[in-house]
Amino acid sequence: MIVTNTLPGTVSADTVERARRIRLVLTDCDGCLTDGAAYYSNRGEELKRFSLRDGMGVERLRIHARIETGIITREEGGPANARAEKLGVAELHLGAVDKSEVVRAVAVRRGLSVEEIAFLGDDVNDIPALDLCGLAACPADAFLAVLQHVHFVCPSAGGCGAFRDLAEFLLRAQLGTTPVP
Amino acid sequence: MIVTNTLPGTVSADTVERARRIRLVLTDCDGCLTDGAAYYSNRGEELKRFSLRDGMGVERLRIHARIETGIITREEGGPANARAEKLGVAELHLGAVDKSEVVRAVAVRRGLSVEEIAFLGDDVNDIPALDLCGLAACPADAFLAVLQHVHFVCPSAGGCGAFRDLAEFLLRAQLGTTPVP
Amino acid sequence: MIVTNTLPGTVSADTVERARRIRLVLTDCDGCLTDGAAYYSNRGEELKRFSLRDGMGVERLRIHARIETGIITREEGGPANARAEKLGVAELHLGAVDKSEVVRAVAVRRGLSVEEIAFLGDDVNDIPALDLCGLAACPADAFLAVLQHVHFVCPSAGGCGAFRDLAEFLLRAQLGTTPVP
Amino acid sequence: MIVTNTLPGTVSADTVERARRIRLVLTDCDGCLTDGAAYYSNRGEELKRFSLRDGMGVERLRIHARIETGIITREEGGPANARAEKLGVAELHLGAVDKSEVVRAVAVRRGLSVEEIAFLGDDVNDIPALDLCGLAACPADAFLAVLQHVHFVCPSAGGCGAFRDLAEFLLRAQLGTTPVP
Repeated sequence: MIVTNTLPGTVSADTVERARRIRLVLTDCDGCLTDGAAYYSNRGEELKRFSLRDGMGVERLRIHARIETGIITREEGGPANARAEKLGVAELHLGAVDKSEVVRAVAVRRGLSVEEIAFLGDDVNDIPALDLCGLAACPADAFLAVLQHVHFVCPSAGGCGAFRDLAEFLLRAQLGTTPVP
Repeated sequence: MIVTNTLPGTVSADTVERARRIRLVLTDCDGCLTDGAAYYSNRGEELKRFSLRDGMGVERLRIHARIETGIITREEGGPANARAEKLGVAELHLGAVDKSEVVRAVAVRRGLSVEEIAFLGDDVNDIPALDLCGLAACPADAFLAVLQHVHFVCPSAGGCGAFRDLAEFLLRAQLGTTPVP
Repeated sequence: MIVTNTLPGTVSADTVERARRIRLVLTDCDGCLTDGAAYYSNRGEELKRFSLRDGMGVERLRIHARIETGIITREEGGPANARAEKLGVAELHLGAVDKSEVVRAVAVRRGLSVEEIAFLGDDVNDIPALDLCGLAACPADAFLAVLQHVHFVCPSAGGCGAFRDLAEFLLRAQLGTTPVP
Repeated sequence: MIVTNTLPGTVSADTVERARRIRLVLTDCDGCLTDGAAYYSNRGEELKRFSLRDGMGVERLRIHARIETGIITREEGGPANARAEKLGVAELHLGAVDKSEVVRAVAVRRGLSVEEIAFLGDDVNDIPALDLCGLAACPADAFLAVLQHVHFVCPSAGGCGAFRDLAEFLLRAQLGTTPVP
């Protein structure tokens, strides 16, 4: 089911119901927490661009709804690792070739059902994890084939607030309001 | 009151009146002076992107209207500190958890009323400071809930000239013209 | 012939026929794999911005259709070199003043006809190579004069997924579907 | 006179006439050759983003029409210096407080009239130089007040090909065609 939305009211009742059950948000890194780019010098990959608004989303989920966040990426360290440390996320999985397998393992270890886990992904290798989780979401600029596998399309692009969009949607669904500040 | 505007004429008379009283502009850093992003290496946060046009806004406020500028941010140093030094801003407050408290303290120390202070903020943690100040402004791409708390929405996004927009609006309100050069 | 397209169906039958013959994709670097920018410090050129989605395109072409990728650039090393190493491309040609000459030499060495080679280019110095190859493509934001020399205009801009667009078009043309994942 | 144009035909005959006389293009750096941003670390300004397509513009002006290029900026070195060196521009003036004075001095030294000089500028401190030169141009995203002082508005924003737009317009005006390659 494809749901494009910029206002809460345009999300289906089923999607809101799914959002109410979420206890953990897992997200891909490149293209979700970043704009999908890497800045290279002649020595190799140097920098990736992260949104600080997404960081506030991680914090607000934790403080206002006790929802934890985790990052699952195929990359083996680098900026994702450093960003995860700054955010203090509950789960960090680097070098993940099969992300849905990681999601399953995390669910078992934390005593959660997959219905209690949301996944944010943007590319074809995220599809199995999106299909597995209770709430599947993607950035506004996700790879086209991904759209058919999500309940919620974030109004913002990857690295430009997509994670924050998902976080705020979950807060509204669970609290009925946007906490200020 | 929400006022979206790209031309001076579309701002309410009340907002212009508020702008005429301003002696100090305080601004959040991330999402206001920057695009809300941080560039990470595997060692952590490395870079933030600032607009040099905003820098000219700081200078023009000082030269043409004797309006000083200050930065209030929750971050504890880093690029904001270096940028503030280059700009020569009158106030720099790092690690500010409660920004409205900082605004109050600055007002007392400088012998200003809060009506003489403008605040530029983009996210929920800026709302108490926005509510406190005589003129509240936000970038064009501010977090949605912030829009209800400002008198002036800058035509430009954060880090892309939002501060300069506010500076030029204040100059027009106080001088009746755009000083050239 | 100019073909602007965002959906497979809008590409001409001739272009699809050309795509079916491709065994090797050669691409310019600046403006195709990057957004055409270079980040300078006071020591000179430091960084270029690459799309990781393009990287997945290189991998998907190789795995799903045994199509190899090569980079031909006038630049003499630097970030292009480092990116090529990470991607593991089959061909890397730096310092290429006459790109069409390089294409011809690659074709001979690999025992390919130019009809089996696709070229992605964005600027006037790419035109001879575009005119030579079986399938000519450019990013959405290519230099205007280039548009008259391509069969396929990628929906995405350079450095923002243009190469991936071309890769996915080739996969659809050759496999009749988008492989997942 | 304000002229917005994306196609050659929309430029006034007077502007084309002005373009035919140009022997030297002088340009501001920040906001013209760059997007007006600076990337700061905690040590200060580190990087600026330049368009490589503009670099090809510098080269094409020189090769195809023997038009030289120069950079005039208020900044005192840094990335502008490094970029100028890579481009091999004929004139580089750092720390220029009064740009129109520099333009006059350059004209005298080179035996050119100001009618033979084009100037590309984006902000209020460029206005005197724009008013002085035979052809005045600005990027698509120039400061609003600048638009009233130019003959030619580049279709591209600063740092995204604005200089190249001007270069190609001059080539078309002087050669009657776009040289390929």
